[in-house]
Amino acid sequence: MSNEIKQWLSMIERGELKAEEAYDKLKGYEDIGFAKIDLHREKRQGFPEVIYSEGKTVEQILSIFTRLKATNETVLATRVSKEKADKLLPHLSDVQYDECARTLLFDERSSHQGLGKVGILCAGTSDLPVAEEAAVTAHAMGLEVQRFYDVGVAGIHRLFDQLESIRTCDVLIVVAGMEGALVSVVGGLVQQPILAVPTSVGYGTNFQGVSALLTMLNSCSSGVSVVNIDNGFGAAYQAALIVRVKENNHHTQ
Amino acid sequence: MSNEIKQWLSMIERGELKAEEAYDKLKGYEDIGFAKIDLHREKRQGFPEVIYSEGKTVEQILSIFTRLKATNETVLATRVSKEKADKLLPHLSDVQYDECARTLLFDERSSHQGLGKVGILCAGTSDLPVAEEAAVTAHAMGLEVQRFYDVGVAGIHRLFDQLESIRTCDVLIVVAGMEGALVSVVGGLVQQPILAVPTSVGYGTNFQGVSALLTMLNSCSSGVSVVNIDNGFGAAYQAALIVRVKENNHHTQ
Amino acid sequence: MSNEIKQWLSMIERGELKAEEAYDKLKGYEDIGFAKIDLHREKRQGFPEVIYSEGKTVEQILSIFTRLKATNETVLATRVSKEKADKLLPHLSDVQYDECARTLLFDERSSHQGLGKVGILCAGTSDLPVAEEAAVTAHAMGLEVQRFYDVGVAGIHRLFDQLESIRTCDVLIVVAGMEGALVSVVGGLVQQPILAVPTSVGYGTNFQGVSALLTMLNSCSSGVSVVNIDNGFGAAYQAALIVRVKENNHHTQ
Amino acid sequence: MSNEIKQWLSMIERGELKAEEAYDKLKGYEDIGFAKIDLHREKRQGFPEVIYSEGKTVEQILSIFTRLKATNETVLATRVSKEKADKLLPHLSDVQYDECARTLLFDERSSHQGLGKVGILCAGTSDLPVAEEAAVTAHAMGLEVQRFYDVGVAGIHRLFDQLESIRTCDVLIVVAGMEGALVSVVGGLVQQPILAVPTSVGYGTNFQGVSALLTMLNSCSSGVSVVNIDNGFGAAYQAALIVRVKENNHHTQ
Amino acid sequence: MSNEIKQWLSMIERGELKAEEAYDKLKGYEDIGFAKIDLHREKRQGFPEVIYSEGKTVEQILSIFTRLKATNETVLATRVSKEKADKLLPHLSDVQYDECARTLLFDERSSHQGLGKVGILCAGTSDLPVAEEAAVTAHAMGLEVQRFYDVGVAGIHRLFDQLESIRTCDVLIVVAGMEGALVSVVGGLVQQPILAVPTSVGYGTNFQGVSALLTMLNSCSSGVSVVNIDNGFGAAYQAALIVRVKENNHHTQ
Amino acid sequence: MSNEIKQWLSMIERGELKAEEAYDKLKGYEDIGFAKIDLHREKRQGFPEVIYSEGKTVEQILSIFTRLKATNETVLATRVSKEKADKLLPHLSDVQYDECARTLLFDERSSHQGLGKVGILCAGTSDLPVAEEAAVTAHAMGLEVQRFYDVGVAGIHRLFDQLESIRTCDVLIVVAGMEGALVSVVGGLVQQPILAVPTSVGYGTNFQGVSALLTMLNSCSSGVSVVNIDNGFGAAYQAALIVRVKENNHHTQ
Amino acid sequence: MSNEIKQWLSMIERGELKAEEAYDKLKGYEDIGFAKIDLHREKRQGFPEVIYSEGKTVEQILSIFTRLKATNETVLATRVSKEKADKLLPHLSDVQYDECARTLLFDERSSHQGLGKVGILCAGTSDLPVAEEAAVTAHAMGLEVQRFYDVGVAGIHRLFDQLESIRTCDVLIVVAGMEGALVSVVGGLVQQPILAVPTSVGYGTNFQGVSALLTMLNSCSSGVSVVNIDNGFGAAYQAALIVRVKENNHHTQ
Amino acid sequence: MSNEIKQWLSMIERGELKAEEAYDKLKGYEDIGFAKIDLHREKRQGFPEVIYSEGKTVEQILSIFTRLKATNETVLATRVSKEKADKLLPHLSDVQYDECARTLLFDERSSHQGLGKVGILCAGTSDLPVAEEAAVTAHAMGLEVQRFYDVGVAGIHRLFDQLESIRTCDVLIVVAGMEGALVSVVGGLVQQPILAVPTSVGYGTNFQGVSALLTMLNSCSSGVSVVNIDNGFGAAYQAALIVRVKENNHHTQ
Repeated sequence: MSNEIKQWLSMIERGELKAEEAYDKLKGYEDIGFAKIDLHREKRQGFPEVIYSEGKTVEQILSIFTRLKATNETVLATRVSKEKADKLLPHLSDVQYDECARTLLFDERSSHQGLGKVGILCAGTSDLPVAEEAAVTAHAMGLEVQRFYDVGVAGIHRLFDQLESIRTCDVLIVVAGMEGALVSVVGGLVQQPILAVPTSVGYGTNFQGVSALLTMLNSCSSGVSVVNIDNGFGAAYQAALIVRVKENNHHTQ
Repeated sequence: MSNEIKQWLSMIERGELKAEEAYDKLKGYEDIGFAKIDLHREKRQGFPEVIYSEGKTVEQILSIFTRLKATNETVLATRVSKEKADKLLPHLSDVQYDECARTLLFDERSSHQGLGKVGILCAGTSDLPVAEEAAVTAHAMGLEVQRFYDVGVAGIHRLFDQLESIRTCDVLIVVAGMEGALVSVVGGLVQQPILAVPTSVGYGTNFQGVSALLTMLNSCSSGVSVVNIDNGFGAAYQAALIVRVKENNHHTQ
Repeated sequence: MSNEIKQWLSMIERGELKAEEAYDKLKGYEDIGFAKIDLHREKRQGFPEVIYSEGKTVEQILSIFTRLKATNETVLATRVSKEKADKLLPHLSDVQYDECARTLLFDERSSHQGLGKVGILCAGTSDLPVAEEAAVTAHAMGLEVQRFYDVGVAGIHRLFDQLESIRTCDVLIVVAGMEGALVSVVGGLVQQPILAVPTSVGYGTNFQGVSALLTMLNSCSSGVSVVNIDNGFGAAYQAALIVRVKENNHHTQ
Repeated sequence: MSNEIKQWLSMIERGELKAEEAYDKLKGYEDIGFAKIDLHREKRQGFPEVIYSEGKTVEQILSIFTRLKATNETVLATRVSKEKADKLLPHLSDVQYDECARTLLFDERSSHQGLGKVGILCAGTSDLPVAEEAAVTAHAMGLEVQRFYDVGVAGIHRLFDQLESIRTCDVLIVVAGMEGALVSVVGGLVQQPILAVPTSVGYGTNFQGVSALLTMLNSCSSGVSVVNIDNGFGAAYQAALIVRVKENNHHTQ
Repeated sequence: MSNEIKQWLSMIERGELKAEEAYDKLKGYEDIGFAKIDLHREKRQGFPEVIYSEGKTVEQILSIFTRLKATNETVLATRVSKEKADKLLPHLSDVQYDECARTLLFDERSSHQGLGKVGILCAGTSDLPVAEEAAVTAHAMGLEVQRFYDVGVAGIHRLFDQLESIRTCDVLIVVAGMEGALVSVVGGLVQQPILAVPTSVGYGTNFQGVSALLTMLNSCSSGVSVVNIDNGFGAAYQAALIVRVKENNHHTQ
Repeated sequence: MSNEIKQWLSMIERGELKAEEAYDKLKGYEDIGFAKIDLHREKRQGFPEVIYSEGKTVEQILSIFTRLKATNETVLATRVSKEKADKLLPHLSDVQYDECARTLLFDERSSHQGLGKVGILCAGTSDLPVAEEAAVTAHAMGLEVQRFYDVGVAGIHRLFDQLESIRTCDVLIVVAGMEGALVSVVGGLVQQPILAVPTSVGYGTNFQGVSALLTMLNSCSSGVSVVNIDNGFGAAYQAALIVRVKENNHHTQ
Repeated sequence: MSNEIKQWLSMIERGELKAEEAYDKLKGYEDIGFAKIDLHREKRQGFPEVIYSEGKTVEQILSIFTRLKATNETVLATRVSKEKADKLLPHLSDVQYDECARTLLFDERSSHQGLGKVGILCAGTSDLPVAEEAAVTAHAMGLEVQRFYDVGVAGIHRLFDQLESIRTCDVLIVVAGMEGALVSVVGGLVQQPILAVPTSVGYGTNFQGVSALLTMLNSCSSGVSVVNIDNGFGAAYQAALIVRVKENNHHTQ
Repeated sequence: MSNEIKQWLSMIERGELKAEEAYDKLKGYEDIGFAKIDLHREKRQGFPEVIYSEGKTVEQILSIFTRLKATNETVLATRVSKEKADKLLPHLSDVQYDECARTLLFDERSSHQGLGKVGILCAGTSDLPVAEEAAVTAHAMGLEVQRFYDVGVAGIHRLFDQLESIRTCDVLIVVAGMEGALVSVVGGLVQQPILAVPTSVGYGTNFQGVSALLTMLNSCSSGVSVVNIDNGFGAAYQAALIVRVKENNHHTQ
């Protein structure tokens, strides 16, 4: 940002820019009362703001979604309950609701960018909602998604049979609850960076995902980093940034 | 025990036993001031009392060890620091100290019972002291011991290469620190009961073994039960009880 | 597995096996979309896969149960709520629902194997659901089950009166909530391996079973290993593996 | 206290007391710079202030001890390390140091009050320092002390053999580390109030005494209340208050 | 108990008792299928078994209550929800339900024993249910109860005004949620033993009563012991044992 | 208070005050059965008692509110659910309910005191209820309130744009959930004392606000102190005390 | 800051400022290799940067201290061990080391500002180091300090006797370990804002200060905010900001 | 791997490979007694095994390092204490020890690969050892490293001044202790994937890094993933994998 400030300062000095205009450039958000919608995020970070819907009312989600839809090709809302979606959909044309992933997606892109391919592995059937939140997010971010579901280590041959395909991905998201051992096993077999997502699936000493989280943070396999419990969105977002590292370099070289 | 009481009561009734003698039969321990040494434990549980040395002074360990040595073929003390061992050994003839396992063992058995075979797996080099405590204990309890060390999941082929041998054991002890994923992987590949021992090896969110403990308690593989962190002794003791189930049945059938 | 690979490799070398067929042998599961049903588990571990129903939809449970029922003599589903069972039963002939244990069991065995006998002790009336999950599972695994219920240490004579019977079992499962002290007391009185199951019964500092769990992990009695809170299934599964150690040896000797 | 205020107010009204004197009556402590020594505590609570020495310098302990010794028949300091005691003893005549209990005791009472009898049970040898802190404190508070040491539940017959004696006590202090199950067992067998003292003896999931603490707070036996981990002093102090309830009533009836 | 065994043994020896009869004496409970009702508890501990109703079905409570009512003058059930009480009351004549305390009490005593007086203090209005559970229990145990409610330290003059009355009690129960500081303040002002009951009243870092529990365990005032969070029953039971210490002594002297 | 006691004592001595009257002065509360309403709080602390409504019944809230309303210009109740408010409002004239803040406010002040200005910042839309509880409380305490909402660090320019206004406040309340980083950033940019309020907004490792709480307690920026999770009321109350420091000094100088 | 940017932008527009100079204005720190010393902090926050010495080498502390000493009238370093201080003092002229507070202070102010008065209360002798860290810091920040030490609630009259003096302070810092109840008691008696500092003094369930921390966060008294465990510096810094609110207002009115 | 198995199977079928040779290909490690050195890791994961030295003896480190040095161009050992390094260096020629990073590095590469550039930010001076462990590791993995140290949010302008340079990196590692807020601030300003490393720097409620860890897992900024506390190595390893994603694609396209 200091770079832009320098440029703007020089432009004012040269009379090419008014002080008032320079100031407006810095603002970069729209104030709609209860919220300040970040309009510069796509510029700063390459993707528009995603709406985290938990703790927001239907009215608030509708208001923010509508505003973003007006100026973006894709808009994504996560953690949208079925109940809220039913109230929102009549007011949002061309928006798809995915009940398993709990996402609302508006997508007007003519073609997908195909930045790269993310493989999403999950250990068991109960981890599907988190895995699908990651899948929908990754798709919205322009990634190709390949799913490898129900490959937990209790029947490890199911994983080995897919290794060849798994190794064709650019980056992997591994979703697991209970003890989360899948991450360490995959980490010992591949060269891709792994984004580990602990889920709150389990009971007793699982402590709503803490068991899987600790497993992943302490993984004896290198090349693993971790996001918050049940945060499928966060893993997919990070995957998109990682794949884009490649893209960026094509531009700079 | 109610059975024995019934017998004793009948014997008194028939004049075959004095009331005073019957009462003495129930006592079953020797009071040496600071401790009451359990002399019936071998009768009740099949193995003599093992001395847990942490928190005991050299004098206390010496006193108890000497007393047990007088009436048993094998005596085992665990958690004996090198420092304490150096002070104890001059006073304990025919006793071996194992520095890695931190055990003192007196063993006068002419031949080993060969109850069965326990396989001890450990994930990494740092888990050796706990694995060796299990190995020495298992040996003292009359088991054959086979070691499978450094077979952690970060290089899973090292484990697979040993599977054939591992499957020849009656019961398995799996020792692992960090995230403890080894347990789930082994649990998915074998039919033996697995006794999982979390170790305090690791740092940060390992929380002195809690990470590995939670992994093991939440293992997606069935056939796993868990003992306290670093409790190699406890796993081996349990392994001996398990193998003896077989022996007991030979007698009852 | 490396052993089988060696055999298959030799067979191909000798022209007795096609490469393609060898590869198919390794697969061992059926992919039904949202899940990969493990068909080799009975071969690898001696019991068919058990369906853990929490977090699965009625449709998913039905689909997996039906698939397993087609090829197995016994099929077990645990953690099935009354609500789900009511929806499932009309579609599953010859299947019994146990409301207390929350299990669905399909059992076509002509005679039970009688591998051995497991004693299930529980401390209080509130621990019954967990104890019964263990009992149904043990029965499904081919064990004879003997129940010793409501023998908590607050009235310790109730336990002592049953000791004679308890000692006739091959292995014991001790289920207890609150402070879980029953495990240590039983552990000091018997020679059987004890599988301890903490339950989430209690309030306040019980912390949903953590109090009982810690008691069991720190038991001053040897011969105790522990499974996850409320995991009656896991204890019974482990008990079956333990009893089978004996069986295995009859074959190998 | 409001009662005394009323009396003093009336006395001033009647001219029997000066306002200034009434105010001085409320002060009740001596300010020695770094501390305000509570001189009224014996009046308010029946025993002089006891010096908790952890975190205090040798100079501070000496200063407070000397001041209390000048005006009391008994003075007790707890948590005095051997190192500090060696520096203090030359300056404190007629004071005994107990290395196991880590206490300094000045005791000039011609005869002991014999308020009643406290039984102190402990589970294992490692719990002795805490049990002895309780014993020394109880003695200083005027109680008769009877010790029942090393009666842990792993060899429960050692406890049963002492039950007759245990039942002659007025109140019991039960000291236990590891899983602390002794408390529940004793609680189910006697009618005395039990003060449970968890100790930090153990390792791994003992969490420095938390395991024993939770056991005791969740005891299925009624009639148990608990003090802080390793707080032998607190249990003995409470025991003295309990026994004195009887004494107080003799006066009031 | 060893004492009784000795007597019985001698009686058999002298032909005064049959072996079979002696054995029956040890049993002391009635087995009603899902539970073993402890009939000796009143002999062993001086009060009949109290029914803890959480986790029990209406049928189970009714069955146990009816059985105990047949042979006891007072029967108490705690943690009985309004819903369960409505179903139970039509089947239980002469039983009172207290909605605030959530207790069912059957009380046929002609006169109350008046063992002594317990003072029950509570910090705020939200602590009433726990305080009332203590009050009803103490009354059922034969104690006189005096209530000092809403005397929290935020308005400490309310407490001071009652000190005179508080000091007339034999033992005090102090019930407090949030930070539980009331215990330390009362502990510094009185000579009675204090039984502290943390409640789960509060929010955020109260952690369902853990904050108050820790305060009470760490109280800088001596003479405080603690029971489980929300355990009003346990404190009252302990209070009754404490007051009875006095009674016992009258008999033995 | 000792000062007032001295004055009253002197007045009695001089015959200017009756002992009985002096005693009444100390009482300072009204006993309405289940509660003792603190009437002196406004004298002791400058604001009337505020009604914390969680855990209180509608009847209890109504009774206390009515009593306070009779003698105060402003009465505030916090944590009033919509459900309770609907039942209370018909009985409380001139009282406003704020659904977002969950407060009931009675306010008869002719003019506001304008003690000073508090700025309330919050990180995201989901933190609004806590921020509004603070805002309503601060207003009731006589402060001018300025809101800076949705200024979380993920779009830090939104914060920077408001810095000029933020710096005109006397004291700041910063409300944030999730990771609570806003506090450290603001703390590094302003000279005002900051009262940090962690909220329970978030999921997974947020642990109902613990994550934000720890962030705030460990803030690398100086000038931050913290209140309980979701305690908007507490922060506003503290803000009012802080601003009044200025007022107090005007009087004393 | 946006305000200053606006001004600078206008100045450049008017040719009064060069773009390069404007940019330099934003830098505000000196880079000394391993650290960037914040030179603008006094401008931004009113006090120079304070050196937190834990985890810094003697060389690093010396380098930063020397740099700050060159341009400030007062420089403060906290958490300086005796060992480090002995090495530092020969190189730092006119600097005082306080062994109890563990602070190094350089103070060249001709007269103290006397911003206002802070009262520092502590519960016991062991809390002195934290209280003194607060006292030295407050003095360095220009506050008058009054100490009220050893006024814990176990002897509450010691506190009441000082209330008159305590009430003359502008703001209070209450330092307490163990259960920290002092904060709630003081909070119920005074009108000053209270900054509560939990200390790690205690043992067992004190959990290195967590017990006192929770007490303070859950205080039933209003007007309390809390800083990190043992953070005497942080409380004093906040106290200075609070007192300065008064000063600021004098300027703005 | 299944791919390679298929190939080998076909080769045997075609007589191009002996069964015995095929089996040897799968082994891939050297057994040196206490450890099995993973020789295939470079093939499987692209970098040779790194030696984690904590919990290993000097002899074990030397043995493994020497073995790896014989067959690799670069060998890295982390967590090597100064004490161990002094004993190891005489036996390891051409190896550099970095005392701050606690690493031993053998590096015989003629030129560095320059895979890409990693920016390493750290919040304060105390975080240097972790940051340097990351820097040395990243260098050994073939990355260009740029350091941005001491840019914590308490003086946020120090960070802003470096933003232009920071944005030229491919991936960022952000190292922070205390409350770890730096991660969220950076995450809101850049487009690079951020690997967050919490450090154990802090005291009190920092809980040895848990505070920073939770902040990072709950970051409101997207594009952040987290590694274990103090795991500088893990972050650098992950950074290398991320940058290599780009490389991989060059080959596949």
